[in-house]
Amino acid sequence: MSNKKMEKSEEKCALQEILGVIGGKWSMSIIYALFPGKKRFSELERLVPNINTRMLVKELKNMETNGIVVRKVYATVPPTVEYTLTPKGQKLEPIISELYKWGLEYVG
Amino acid sequence: MSNKKMEKSEEKCALQEILGVIGGKWSMSIIYALFPGKKRFSELERLVPNINTRMLVKELKNMETNGIVVRKVYATVPPTVEYTLTPKGQKLEPIISELYKWGLEYVG
Repeated sequence: MSNKKMEKSEEKCALQEILGVIGGKWSMSIIYALFPGKKRFSELERLVPNINTRMLVKELKNMETNGIVVRKVYATVPPTVEYTLTPKGQKLEPIISELYKWGLEYVG
Repeated sequence: MSNKKMEKSEEKCALQEILGVIGGKWSMSIIYALFPGKKRFSELERLVPNINTRMLVKELKNMETNGIVVRKVYATVPPTVEYTLTPKGQKLEPIISELYKWGLEYVG
């Protein structure tokens, strides 16, 4: 495989991998909801339209595994769970904001 | 609902709508493959890793409906079908390129 083609195919796989991490329909909306700062599970459930509890649990676990969010449990009764974007997650803010601007122009 | 909250919830729905258009795991990879220029269906099948024919047909139909790509059929035997990004689709290039750079730093 020529060098140029190799580069191209590495590029494509990387994009596929990236979208596997944050490409899901819900992940970007959850990240967007966390930009202003840490949020509790119940707050995220309210802030992300149409998401159900099971899907939010699954997405947050995936995002935690991928280092996009950190999860903190407080020993209150019942326990309180807070989610915060990692620096890696925060770096997505300009991208998602640009995506949002594109959407306002072309989708809204 | 206070004005600020109204704005916030409109913002969230818009993002959800945007991601409905281009948020799918495959759509961004297809758009990425079309940045250099028009492509035939078979070329897209080769350029987007792990996608199957049924999924590519579905995604391209969705993208055509949403004005992201245009489809041209040439009366060859068998007919040739080419896909091109619309100006609306081309405008996603800087966003997907930034996403790609983020991914290289944090996912690759």
